[in-house]
Amino acid sequence: MLNEPALKIAQQRLRAVYDPQQFRAAAEQWGELLATHLERVQQRETRVLNWAEPVANIAEAERWLDGVSTEPSARFADIVRQMLDCGHNLHHPRYIGHQVPAPVPIAGLFDAVGSVTNQVMAIYEMGPWATAVERALVNRLGEQIGWQRDSFAGLVTHGGSLGNLTGLLTARNVALGGSWEEGVASDGAKPVIVVQGDAHYSLARAAGVIGLGTKQVLRASLDERRKLDPQKLDEQLTDLIARGHRVVAVAACACATPIGAFDPLRDVANVCRKHGVWMHVDAAHGGAALFSRRYRHLLDGVDQADSVVWDAHKMMFMPALCAFVLYRDKQHRFEAFRQEAPYLFDPSAPGMAEYDSGMLTLECTKRAAAYGLWGTWSLFGQQLFEDLVDVTFDLGRVFYEKLLAAEDFVPLHEPECNIVAFRHVPTALKSAPPETLGAFQRELRRRLIESGRFYIVQTNHGGVGALRVTIINPLTTTDDLDELLVALRELGAELLKSDRP
Amino acid sequence: MLNEPALKIAQQRLRAVYDPQQFRAAAEQWGELLATHLERVQQRETRVLNWAEPVANIAEAERWLDGVSTEPSARFADIVRQMLDCGHNLHHPRYIGHQVPAPVPIAGLFDAVGSVTNQVMAIYEMGPWATAVERALVNRLGEQIGWQRDSFAGLVTHGGSLGNLTGLLTARNVALGGSWEEGVASDGAKPVIVVQGDAHYSLARAAGVIGLGTKQVLRASLDERRKLDPQKLDEQLTDLIARGHRVVAVAACACATPIGAFDPLRDVANVCRKHGVWMHVDAAHGGAALFSRRYRHLLDGVDQADSVVWDAHKMMFMPALCAFVLYRDKQHRFEAFRQEAPYLFDPSAPGMAEYDSGMLTLECTKRAAAYGLWGTWSLFGQQLFEDLVDVTFDLGRVFYEKLLAAEDFVPLHEPECNIVAFRHVPTALKSAPPETLGAFQRELRRRLIESGRFYIVQTNHGGVGALRVTIINPLTTTDDLDELLVALRELGAELLKSDRP
Repeated sequence: MLNEPALKIAQQRLRAVYDPQQFRAAAEQWGELLATHLERVQQRETRVLNWAEPVANIAEAERWLDGVSTEPSARFADIVRQMLDCGHNLHHPRYIGHQVPAPVPIAGLFDAVGSVTNQVMAIYEMGPWATAVERALVNRLGEQIGWQRDSFAGLVTHGGSLGNLTGLLTARNVALGGSWEEGVASDGAKPVIVVQGDAHYSLARAAGVIGLGTKQVLRASLDERRKLDPQKLDEQLTDLIARGHRVVAVAACACATPIGAFDPLRDVANVCRKHGVWMHVDAAHGGAALFSRRYRHLLDGVDQADSVVWDAHKMMFMPALCAFVLYRDKQHRFEAFRQEAPYLFDPSAPGMAEYDSGMLTLECTKRAAAYGLWGTWSLFGQQLFEDLVDVTFDLGRVFYEKLLAAEDFVPLHEPECNIVAFRHVPTALKSAPPETLGAFQRELRRRLIESGRFYIVQTNHGGVGALRVTIINPLTTTDDLDELLVALRELGAELLKSDRP
Repeated sequence: MLNEPALKIAQQRLRAVYDPQQFRAAAEQWGELLATHLERVQQRETRVLNWAEPVANIAEAERWLDGVSTEPSARFADIVRQMLDCGHNLHHPRYIGHQVPAPVPIAGLFDAVGSVTNQVMAIYEMGPWATAVERALVNRLGEQIGWQRDSFAGLVTHGGSLGNLTGLLTARNVALGGSWEEGVASDGAKPVIVVQGDAHYSLARAAGVIGLGTKQVLRASLDERRKLDPQKLDEQLTDLIARGHRVVAVAACACATPIGAFDPLRDVANVCRKHGVWMHVDAAHGGAALFSRRYRHLLDGVDQADSVVWDAHKMMFMPALCAFVLYRDKQHRFEAFRQEAPYLFDPSAPGMAEYDSGMLTLECTKRAAAYGLWGTWSLFGQQLFEDLVDVTFDLGRVFYEKLLAAEDFVPLHEPECNIVAFRHVPTALKSAPPETLGAFQRELRRRLIESGRFYIVQTNHGGVGALRVTIINPLTTTDDLDELLVALRELGAELLKSDRP
């Protein structure tokens, strides 16, 4: 039963929590803490990764939940500092690791306009401006692909994995007409998906999710540059179709993760068209190259795809997550989710359903994930995106040449973009067996990242461990790249002296 | 080929974009703009929803993308103002609409620490602190459910819809052993999911996504209070199993959307256990009631569920999106996605896979979605969440009593929480046919929200349109609720005078 005095006291406590004056004071501290942090990180005054064991970090995070001893106003800055001191410093010029960028810092402010005021979508009226900026950006990205306005459609979702899932789900529903309502039938030859041999694991995972089964994901053959081989794809599709399989989709990459190889999209498209198969392009990483006059040729033919995934939180340097799914033919926009939720989608304003993002996306309530990109684009203009691609792709080339010039480093491919795979091969390991060489790379990397000096990643190349960088911070200099080789040499020498590997 | 002078010029432009001093100045403006906005909104000096037609908003959003005419420093504030002026004002005390809260404002600052610095997960080392705070909160929420530490597991995902999808996918993989690898088999009687009759559309949608088919989603019978009827469920399961159907899961609600009805979870659990069926609870909205000594009884038995979805971006008043999926038995944590991505999950540190969120979630790269909740909890303590539930649930009761007392309003149920469905029935419509009465509610709502005076939603009750509020802003007062009745009366009278409906 209602206890009015208790209600009044609780309301009073909550008004204090929601007090705009308290927010103003906190925001002021927040801006200063973040700006100072960015300065220190960009000046290389911090470690790149603040490594700590998971169990220790989790225990520490729990301690804070119990620790309400001081006034909120005194405590706020301590909490923010804790977050900054224990994180990963992607703005450090020596962060050259995963395909996750050092984002444009101000993008985080635009993004946070949406967070503080909680602009969401699902239905248009809940986030009219959030919907508008998403649609405006879909228009621009589709046109960048080369499509005619009003002929295509698109949406934003929470990451490339959900994007690939959405694209393949649409392909499934188009290829297997009744599968949304009836389920995936499995009598006879099973429907399959053909993916680039180096495609991201989210594509195979999507097949597991949408009921096709991961075993029905077939790898397409790659050529010596690890690009999809169109002629072999043609043979593969011919064979599959002859054996009665429905090919739900072919998934090509622009680019694939391991060495950043861009598939020959125009040739792939011709093969897909010949066989009447849906062509999906995972351009999560490389889509932004369309902004670069010098690099857009890498995506030649992408306009022939049926669906394209393009992450703004990769090479458009936005904070995670802001992934676009784009359909060449706007007729396909409602195929992924054929349902209606009548209580959401309003018969008194039926035209609104066209603008209700919940009809298009896996999410129902969706955050205003495009606020960061829209604000950044509006502030700096489109040139920014060309610069970001050009600088980081160019530095990939510079790094490759440094590797070539070094006696004790071996690049594993000629880079097409900002991804470079390589190995450190000191004299002592010149004739080591592959497994020793591979284990050395992995152990070397672990020591490097735990030292906080650099952050790089690892990959497999020909089944053997290797090192890999993605130059995805525009503040990384050629000196930093020289220093990476120095650091690897030092840690490599230490490692060779120790027992391991 | 590399053009070194061009590279240097582009690098220089990018250093300006990343300049911490520019960020500092922008952040200062940003904090002041947001604080002033919150003041105006909370003082009811703005419209609730800034309604504009989608086509007009989209065109305006595109115009900004072209408009780089002034210096960024001059332009920044204009862009932020544009976002604030065209959005939906959830902090307006007269926003009492969807199950999307007026979030704790400072939570947005904690969230934005993650955005500006781009803390992400997938693998532990990319977001060590992001992972730590997520796990710390999973521990606390699981214990709040009543589970023993180290016996359960959980994760954060981008919304309740993805949460329901993840839970049902786990259930599918457990119930249909080979479905991840082989696909969903459909020979013989098809596997089914039984959901609460009023369950959220994301549950049926999930069945469409995961290859079971939406037709295999069967509605469980509800009692007169629109709660799942355990005895009828028992009969339904007995019948389905006798007819050879595998029941993948039963999905109960705490609470269901239309009138906020909480299912009798303990009784439902007993039925599920009897039949050996996975029990999923969609506690997206109601999970937070576990923090309230007065309301936690509504979730009695939730500890018997196999999987629970609990959105912190609903009744824990966080900005979207921060949804928890919790498994009673931690053995199930890796069932949803049985795959491995060897290049991500590191053989040189195999123990880390336990802390790699990408093994557990639909997302690969995932933003630090729990930063807002962790910071807010650390700042204000757990009492905040009890207050938020108590105040808003209490006000649901207060509003119900006002409806009862008014001659021209009819509450459609006794509320259990902060969701109340009702109709405005002016004298002229006392004996109107149901379709007229329903159309009147819908048209009335549309006029109300486009006026900017209040934001409320609509629902169907007994197949007839109705109005619905969710009191999900702790600043809403009893006076605001009185004023809502006044506004509906005024607009209702105008509507009756006009031709429509």
